[in-house]
Amino acid sequence: MAVDMDGGAGYAADEPTAIMYLGQHETQRHTPVTGELLAHAQYVGYDMLTAPITTPHFQSRVLAMLEGHMSTLAESSKPESVPLPLISPLTPVDTDLTPEVSNSSLIAVTSPWIDLASPDPLIAHVSRQVFSLEVAYAAFCGINNVMVHGPVSSEGTMQYARAVLEALGLGPYLQMHVLLPMSGELEQDVSADGTHLAELAREQFITPVDEDEDESEPELYGSWEAWNAIRTMCNYSSRLTIALEIPRQLPSLNLQSRWHSEPIRLLVLPRTSFIRNAKGYPVLAKAHQQYLTRFLRLRFPPWVILSDVGSIPSRDADAVDASRPEPTPAEAAAKANDKPNDPVPHMRYLRHLQQTQPSRPPIERFGQGYQDYLQSPLQPLTDNLESITYEVFEKDPVKYEWYERAVALALKDLREKLGEGVPIVVAVVGAGRGPLVTRVLQASSKTGIAVKCCAVEKNPNAHVLLQRRNATDALWNGQVTVVKSDMRSWPGPTTSNGEVGKVDILVSELLGSFADNELSPECLDGVQHVLHPEHGINIPQSYSAHFTPIATPKLYSDLLSRASTDLNLTVSDKWELPYVVMLHQYDYLSVQPAAEEDARTPDVKEAWSFSHPTSEAILSQASKRAGGTTDAGGWVGGDGSNEHNARSCKFTFNCSDRGICHGLGGYFETVLYASPSGQKVELSTNPVTMDEKSQDMISWFPIFFPLKTPLSLPDNAEMEVSMWRQTDDRKVWYEWIVEVYERVGGKRRKLGMSELHTSRKNGCLM
Amino acid sequence: MAVDMDGGAGYAADEPTAIMYLGQHETQRHTPVTGELLAHAQYVGYDMLTAPITTPHFQSRVLAMLEGHMSTLAESSKPESVPLPLISPLTPVDTDLTPEVSNSSLIAVTSPWIDLASPDPLIAHVSRQVFSLEVAYAAFCGINNVMVHGPVSSEGTMQYARAVLEALGLGPYLQMHVLLPMSGELEQDVSADGTHLAELAREQFITPVDEDEDESEPELYGSWEAWNAIRTMCNYSSRLTIALEIPRQLPSLNLQSRWHSEPIRLLVLPRTSFIRNAKGYPVLAKAHQQYLTRFLRLRFPPWVILSDVGSIPSRDADAVDASRPEPTPAEAAAKANDKPNDPVPHMRYLRHLQQTQPSRPPIERFGQGYQDYLQSPLQPLTDNLESITYEVFEKDPVKYEWYERAVALALKDLREKLGEGVPIVVAVVGAGRGPLVTRVLQASSKTGIAVKCCAVEKNPNAHVLLQRRNATDALWNGQVTVVKSDMRSWPGPTTSNGEVGKVDILVSELLGSFADNELSPECLDGVQHVLHPEHGINIPQSYSAHFTPIATPKLYSDLLSRASTDLNLTVSDKWELPYVVMLHQYDYLSVQPAAEEDARTPDVKEAWSFSHPTSEAILSQASKRAGGTTDAGGWVGGDGSNEHNARSCKFTFNCSDRGICHGLGGYFETVLYASPSGQKVELSTNPVTMDEKSQDMISWFPIFFPLKTPLSLPDNAEMEVSMWRQTDDRKVWYEWIVEVYERVGGKRRKLGMSELHTSRKNGCLM
Repeated sequence: MAVDMDGGAGYAADEPTAIMYLGQHETQRHTPVTGELLAHAQYVGYDMLTAPITTPHFQSRVLAMLEGHMSTLAESSKPESVPLPLISPLTPVDTDLTPEVSNSSLIAVTSPWIDLASPDPLIAHVSRQVFSLEVAYAAFCGINNVMVHGPVSSEGTMQYARAVLEALGLGPYLQMHVLLPMSGELEQDVSADGTHLAELAREQFITPVDEDEDESEPELYGSWEAWNAIRTMCNYSSRLTIALEIPRQLPSLNLQSRWHSEPIRLLVLPRTSFIRNAKGYPVLAKAHQQYLTRFLRLRFPPWVILSDVGSIPSRDADAVDASRPEPTPAEAAAKANDKPNDPVPHMRYLRHLQQTQPSRPPIERFGQGYQDYLQSPLQPLTDNLESITYEVFEKDPVKYEWYERAVALALKDLREKLGEGVPIVVAVVGAGRGPLVTRVLQASSKTGIAVKCCAVEKNPNAHVLLQRRNATDALWNGQVTVVKSDMRSWPGPTTSNGEVGKVDILVSELLGSFADNELSPECLDGVQHVLHPEHGINIPQSYSAHFTPIATPKLYSDLLSRASTDLNLTVSDKWELPYVVMLHQYDYLSVQPAAEEDARTPDVKEAWSFSHPTSEAILSQASKRAGGTTDAGGWVGGDGSNEHNARSCKFTFNCSDRGICHGLGGYFETVLYASPSGQKVELSTNPVTMDEKSQDMISWFPIFFPLKTPLSLPDNAEMEVSMWRQTDDRKVWYEWIVEVYERVGGKRRKLGMSELHTSRKNGCLM
Repeated sequence: MAVDMDGGAGYAADEPTAIMYLGQHETQRHTPVTGELLAHAQYVGYDMLTAPITTPHFQSRVLAMLEGHMSTLAESSKPESVPLPLISPLTPVDTDLTPEVSNSSLIAVTSPWIDLASPDPLIAHVSRQVFSLEVAYAAFCGINNVMVHGPVSSEGTMQYARAVLEALGLGPYLQMHVLLPMSGELEQDVSADGTHLAELAREQFITPVDEDEDESEPELYGSWEAWNAIRTMCNYSSRLTIALEIPRQLPSLNLQSRWHSEPIRLLVLPRTSFIRNAKGYPVLAKAHQQYLTRFLRLRFPPWVILSDVGSIPSRDADAVDASRPEPTPAEAAAKANDKPNDPVPHMRYLRHLQQTQPSRPPIERFGQGYQDYLQSPLQPLTDNLESITYEVFEKDPVKYEWYERAVALALKDLREKLGEGVPIVVAVVGAGRGPLVTRVLQASSKTGIAVKCCAVEKNPNAHVLLQRRNATDALWNGQVTVVKSDMRSWPGPTTSNGEVGKVDILVSELLGSFADNELSPECLDGVQHVLHPEHGINIPQSYSAHFTPIATPKLYSDLLSRASTDLNLTVSDKWELPYVVMLHQYDYLSVQPAAEEDARTPDVKEAWSFSHPTSEAILSQASKRAGGTTDAGGWVGGDGSNEHNARSCKFTFNCSDRGICHGLGGYFETVLYASPSGQKVELSTNPVTMDEKSQDMISWFPIFFPLKTPLSLPDNAEMEVSMWRQTDDRKVWYEWIVEVYERVGGKRRKLGMSELHTSRKNGCLM
């Protein structure tokens, strides 16, 4: 049990059309973006437009001022005494923008010809003034989405980032979108037109800096690295996002996934990212379509911005004059579809893609609205679940079916071993509202093997339902022994002669997202006294916890900004517990060497496993320790009576591409039943095996172990993760710590490590 | 002004003998450490003894139990069903210790034959039990100092550290000292005696782990790296310290300094670290003596433990029987000095070293008790200083002398320029209790150049003293014009004809530990209107801020544990401001390539500089901006009237040896006056130039810019530090961020970066 769906999600019967907001951008816009132009753009099918904040007039004015300053400097005998030039306030000829209600559909674009990070103090000074004037004016006009070109050189990233941070402070609702290429340079480069300040600085003002970077070969991850530096300086602000330019050639799947995990607000599709189909229409290549689909499945999909794909057709060209009434939506649609010589074919194509998005896999539909939503794990041992929670779990199309198969298999094996005769005693412990009881009875009826079925449940509210069901359900038919008890205190079933008998098959569903995190091992140890010591079978028989390091900027940013009071935690504690979360916008840091280019399999390691029943010798030692009969003590305190359920592990993960680790994604696998005959019934949420073992199972989301301070990895790093399942006499908790190494000249060197994280204070109570 | 000495330090007239606590350790102690033995050890001159917690009997018992367990396993058909063995409680034959008052002079030693980090779960399990039993028993006996051997292999450091962390939880007063070599292996290795569990594990129990480490060449910094990992996992606990074994050959000065910066509680000198002098007595080599001296100068010097230098001589050997009365101290001393065949020559030699420690440099004597003590910088512009604070500053043997020289030089230059005639107008702004006034008058009297002297002071309390001094001091003799005013509002001196005149020389002492951090630039800009526009001279004429990255585990640990309420700060803020601190136990991370082996010069960079007077054009632009006449705005808010005093810089530091950066050490240099003739009077706290420019100056401690999360550096790293001096219309603050790079195959790759730190909320008010 792992998903707290309180009052929320569930299957959507029909999937609605994908959401796609479409905008239009021109790198050199020649007509002012007026309310009228916007209205017309929306009439032809766009949702929004970009708008330069200032005009070419403003640029000329700044350049003239710079030249004037240069002359003053040249004439001055003490250039250091000349104050830096100041740009006077914007005048109406400097900007076409004005406050209007429709401005919420505009994305303001700051001047691309400035260089915020120039090594020349003069250029940097002027650039910061331009930037600051522009952002402040856009905010004043009520435009809260501002797109700004990324840094000109990697050398100046820190200065650039500092300027962006400052700009975020200019308005409380400002959203800054940093325009970046996926790799290398922007396809639509505006810096080559001779009036870019970075170029002026190189040509005129300062001697070129002694670049000690090797700029010859741009780094594949250079653009991502710049982004990472900028958002790190801005402390993962939720108001800082990316305008990602999609190139004609998509980079490797690894780099695609990396960007997918980042907060992309605008997806910029330049004309060059389209190809022509056989009929000459612009379309996207298959890989581009798939990448777009990945983005459209995000909880908050980015807006798609078509760049330089042609101007908004004028009303005149359409022979639409202002006096004519607006066309009805039907007319507009008809027009849009029929027009032979379509003036907006790129836009139309994207609307087509929007209509034809493939449907989502069940878990995504089921979890809609829960993507990347952090929840504390359930504590079913200390809390009583509500009916709706049970109901959600019972909807799983796979889980209970697999349980039924496992029970049937076990019944057959036992019948063979024990021979015909007395019915087989099956107990469902933690029966909830009884779904597993039904499955046991179905397995019995399908195999024709008689069972004596018990249902044990500690929740008094669920107990009412179990009794009612036993009385009214045709299958149950009054044959189920319903017991209200914590399974650990249940003495066992009463036999026909009034004695306490043993259970042949003990069925439970106590697993959490990380297998043992809801104390299945402790519960099953506690009920083992009812199991037949020779041939008793546990379903599940064994289970294991699995994990892999991941990058999740979104979750990290959420946790950073989250008040700990949301979770009744103290400030330091919000990093000190695992969360159940439907991981969505994230990236695997360690992937297995790929057989095919388009497959990407994470390296998921098995942390540890448990199998049942536990050896009698071990349980007997444990019970002696519980009484304090031996004084050895537990490893982390207490008598040590549960120490046999402590675990630890340490694994090395190879990470080929540089990145930032924000934590560990955790999963589980379980063998419900493995027959000596070789048949096996398994469940898995491990992304590597889930499709093979239990495709479309929806009951469990992954678990996420956060890192308080994200860890940097260079290319070809090795991450070493140490994990512990700790226990004292009252609770169970996890601890995790991560180290980063690299190999240089065959030698391993350590690059860093995280703190030790421990959920001791938030441990699961036994 | 930088040191807040409130009620504290000052020159000690005589330096007392160095403090040295001496202990005796035996790797294989054959006699129980009884109260009697301890008393005798103290009688012969030791302060303390180490004591093994358990006896060889206990070790045999554990080994026997292990063998029994192995047989059980061998006989079992299901080895995984056999519970792990438990060690039964200690019995009197297992330990010689018992609770006694004298136990506070004992250092308990845990069994060196365990392997807490064994990859074999059985060995790890048994080792942790032994460790836990022992530490808990020592704590029960009231022994709070526990020495534990460092990890056996680097592979298991995380597990080892986890065990140490757990042990720290066994008693609230426990101090754990981890025994480590400076590099490589311990000289006194106890793991080779055949009964070490690590060895047993290798031989008997498990197949050797597939070590993928290249163990052939031990890393020079391997031992330090293990320590760093352990204390990082223990979150820089102040109860976790080092017992450092000093080898026969000391490693490089860099590695010596690294260890010196770490929390060494015990300095273990094994027999092998001594050499024999000409007379055959054991002595330490010069380098060892110097290293010891460095440690003894720490605020809390480590205890020195002599290891395996011979047993405590028995009372019988001394022909002292218990019935004989204790010798008087005089008798004991005589005996200690005269005995020809000294049974404790190593101890005696160290006592000799203790008596003959060289005296400390003035700043260390002056700052005694202030080493590594973090203070918030003064805010003299908003707070009024107390007399005692002035008094402390006035004791500086160098600073005021140098000011007098600078004034004399400036007087001579001005007299030459202006010719004889009217007296030269000298104003001391921020005169305090008047020490600079006195120096101005002395310079005048020594050079025979007449001055008209003004003393401007805003502190009304100091103003009283200035007036009294003018009336009573023979040198002042009523000739000083005392003005109570903020210097920025002072119109200037009144001339004989009642008009407002100009000042020829403006003397101030407004510098802070980082030069401009107490707003000298803003104050001097504010008073510049009184300075003669053509020939006016500022003393100081210019100043610059300097910094270098440092490792300071002590300061980091202090800040971590410090309640922010100590400083009236919010939790997140304690990392967001610089501190004035007498840096003491720290290490430079970037040192200049050394000319000599025994010299180690940090790489200190100049962040930025200011010079006075400021150009009139710049001041005039600033005053226009103050009125909002131009709307350009400041870079970080406000009108931008102080933007000309904003600064920024970015530097790369090369760091040859791996380490952890905890922050930046900051310093200043100033040119008080540079004569056109070439003569220059300078002050410096920059460790590279301080001795040359102003040796023995005591008025300023360095400044420390902390990093919230320590940054790891591998060998040959490059650190890139970006710093800003930011300003709006009301205050000034600093920002700093650090990146780490390395070069691999000629390419630079980024390894990590810090957050952006900003003291905006704690800025200095203008």
